[in-house]
Amino acid sequence: MTTATLASVSVTTQANVYFDGKCVSHSLTLADGTKKSVGVILPATLTFSTGAPEIMEGVAGSCEYKLKGSENWVKSGAGEKFSVPGNTSFEIRVSGQPYHYICHFG
Amino acid sequence: MTTATLASVSVTTQANVYFDGKCVSHSLTLADGTKKSVGVILPATLTFSTGAPEIMEGVAGSCEYKLKGSENWVKSGAGEKFSVPGNTSFEIRVSGQPYHYICHFG
Repeated sequence: MTTATLASVSVTTQANVYFDGKCVSHSLTLADGTKKSVGVILPATLTFSTGAPEIMEGVAGSCEYKLKGSENWVKSGAGEKFSVPGNTSFEIRVSGQPYHYICHFG
Repeated sequence: MTTATLASVSVTTQANVYFDGKCVSHSLTLADGTKKSVGVILPATLTFSTGAPEIMEGVAGSCEYKLKGSENWVKSGAGEKFSVPGNTSFEIRVSGQPYHYICHFG
């Protein structure tokens, strides 16, 4: 079951463009002040750093991710989530179709 | 004056990815049912087709656009809008920094 829409949000109109556009997201603020983002990663292998802990929720496509200190690439697809601790880094590898996600913070 | 946020919207979590990611947008639905999108165009020259008429509103960066049948490239930047008729096409040229926009339909 994927989350197709997020309702009653405020959208920051300027996108976040990472890695020359290999990752593009738009930041959202929910009515209760919670911040999330919706984004897409194009085929690439990218390393992201976290501040707050993140939960990545796939909404289309799939990726493989590898947490810092792990040797294992783990596949995650639409309707699946994975957690990344705060103040660390992780790699994401996308091939073929783009990976669309919701990033939940905190 | 740029539109930094759009409030009380429903966001489609899956992005629209055009031209291998040179243009990425997220679709929005307002409380009254009005549809818009927020997107970004990376440095490129792209040709878009319209169904409904569109008003493009820049929120960061700038572009040049050329409507079908025109010979003139016109610059449009943050806080500026331009209109495109329905059922036609137009070219957008972005160089340097990405062009971030809100697309208003109808």
